Amino acid sequence: MTTLHLGMSTVLHIVEVTGIIAFASSGVIEARQKEMDMVGVFTVAFITAFGGGTLRDLLLDRRPLFWVEHQEYPILIFLMALISIPFLRHLRHAVAEKAIIYADALGLGLFSVTGASLAAEAQMPLFVCVMMGVITGIFGGVLRDVICNEIPLVFRRGQLYATCSFVGCWLYLLIEKAGVTQSVSLLMGISVTFLLRALAVRFHWTLPG
Amino acid sequence: MTTLHLGMSTVLHIVEVTGIIAFASSGVIEARQKEMDMVGVFTVAFITAFGGGTLRDLLLDRRPLFWVEHQEYPILIFLMALISIPFLRHLRHAVAEKAIIYADALGLGLFSVTGASLAAEAQMPLFVCVMMGVITGIFGGVLRDVICNEIPLVFRRGQLYATCSFVGCWLYLLIEKAGVTQSVSLLMGISVTFLLRALAVRFHWTLPG
Amino acid sequence: MTTLHLGMSTVLHIVEVTGIIAFASSGVIEARQKEMDMVGVFTVAFITAFGGGTLRDLLLDRRPLFWVEHQEYPILIFLMALISIPFLRHLRHAVAEKAIIYADALGLGLFSVTGASLAAEAQMPLFVCVMMGVITGIFGGVLRDVICNEIPLVFRRGQLYATCSFVGCWLYLLIEKAGVTQSVSLLMGISVTFLLRALAVRFHWTLPG
Repeated sequence: MTTLHLGMSTVLHIVEVTGIIAFASSGVIEARQKEMDMVGVFTVAFITAFGGGTLRDLLLDRRPLFWVEHQEYPILIFLMALISIPFLRHLRHAVAEKAIIYADALGLGLFSVTGASLAAEAQMPLFVCVMMGVITGIFGGVLRDVICNEIPLVFRRGQLYATCSFVGCWLYLLIEKAGVTQSVSLLMGISVTFLLRALAVRFHWTLPG
Repeated sequence: MTTLHLGMSTVLHIVEVTGIIAFASSGVIEARQKEMDMVGVFTVAFITAFGGGTLRDLLLDRRPLFWVEHQEYPILIFLMALISIPFLRHLRHAVAEKAIIYADALGLGLFSVTGASLAAEAQMPLFVCVMMGVITGIFGGVLRDVICNEIPLVFRRGQLYATCSFVGCWLYLLIEKAGVTQSVSLLMGISVTFLLRALAVRFHWTLPG
Repeated sequence: MTTLHLGMSTVLHIVEVTGIIAFASSGVIEARQKEMDMVGVFTVAFITAFGGGTLRDLLLDRRPLFWVEHQEYPILIFLMALISIPFLRHLRHAVAEKAIIYADALGLGLFSVTGASLAAEAQMPLFVCVMMGVITGIFGGVLRDVICNEIPLVFRRGQLYATCSFVGCWLYLLIEKAGVTQSVSLLMGISVTFLLRALAVRFHWTLPG
């Protein structure tokens, strides 16, 4: 049981680091496209990775913030911004882009479902829990686009993104309510969000306009 | 007395729903003009309706947030976003546009004056109370325009908007300070804001540039 | 000792007012360039002056906010916005622009270092303290540019700005940690930030792109 829990938390930790790097990378890429300097690259990467969770924590009045408790993550992004200047040319490789899409889908799943779970812990009503999950998952990207002076990508017609998070959060909350243990319901919510997103990218699923 | 209070709170409740629908509608319209999908329409409508009050609550450190306590409002906006896709063509009708302007003016009055009243309850200094009222009234629209990548409409030269909220909040706070009962001072503040805004639209009043 | 402390706090107060006026002025200028009316001018000036500190206080969960405790500052900016309409023509004079650059550098130093010091008081980890300092110093300008629909100036390649704040905050925190009294370490952090910024402007120092 404890071993299972330990294995689970290791898996979640690896997913977390993967997701943060993927989110930050999309920030680095957009900031570089806008010809920002290192300060801009760091800030945009940081906001993409932690903006959603920070907004959720402000709305729920939770402290300390995630990245305050884990200063290794801001430092990681600082180093990413430092080395991105010489290395970014190579990062824009087609293989890297595909890897980022799937790593991002993993991050979307993890951040959304843990966001919904924190809201549920704080006794929020059900629909609000789903909203907090989706906010955690997508608002980093929304803030990235606002700062880069673009209409947020996630609101433009394209392959399903927020919708995957929405479905994954509902699934997680309903399974959890039905009495399934948290580690199983977390894993199911994350997996379904990830799979839906991967399928949406693969088969070009969009919302009806 | 209790009947009067009950009647008053029913009136305020109707004004509230009217205002929320008007604010959300302006969000729906702007999001559709930017060719957003349903996720964008919902988010922009939601932020237009609740962004001002949420910012005020973050600044005043009030919890639970209004829309967390009343999850029926986010659900209402979710349904509006769902049905807006097929029905929006008809919503852009000239009569509907005029109705939205006046409903919006009602919302501006209610949100501004209740914002100022909550700040006064929290013992804020007078000028800050007025600012909190104006923030509550106008920042939903400001955030809507920022997300839609426009310079906020309310800051561009046009018919008085924030100024009506500013005058209404001062009036409310001064009458209240003079010892008038709250229900009367609330109604006066809301009515004056509404009337000023309606007159500004009707006679094209603007600030000197 | 008390006299020294008193003298110190008078100096800091003068620096504070100078910095606030400089930050607000840059907001006034940008809002006027975007042809905003008085409501826009006030809001943009206010956000430029207090946006960074307000964001820091939201992240640290500190209340009351600085401008709530000192309502004379919002009132000062309100008056600045009122008189800016007729007088701004003259404000765009070359001498005035240079004065604003140096007053702004003073504000950058003060706001950054006091931001870092408040975070240190709140027991934040070291790297997070530096981030809070930089956020306090630069995010007013970031929010100004976001509202004015521009990519933030501070993220575009130009003369060092955030970097000066970054260096000044590290210096302050390390000196303070080394046991130097706070008034000395504050003054050193502020002076170094100011000097670096002044030199960057004078000699066109930029980050490598």
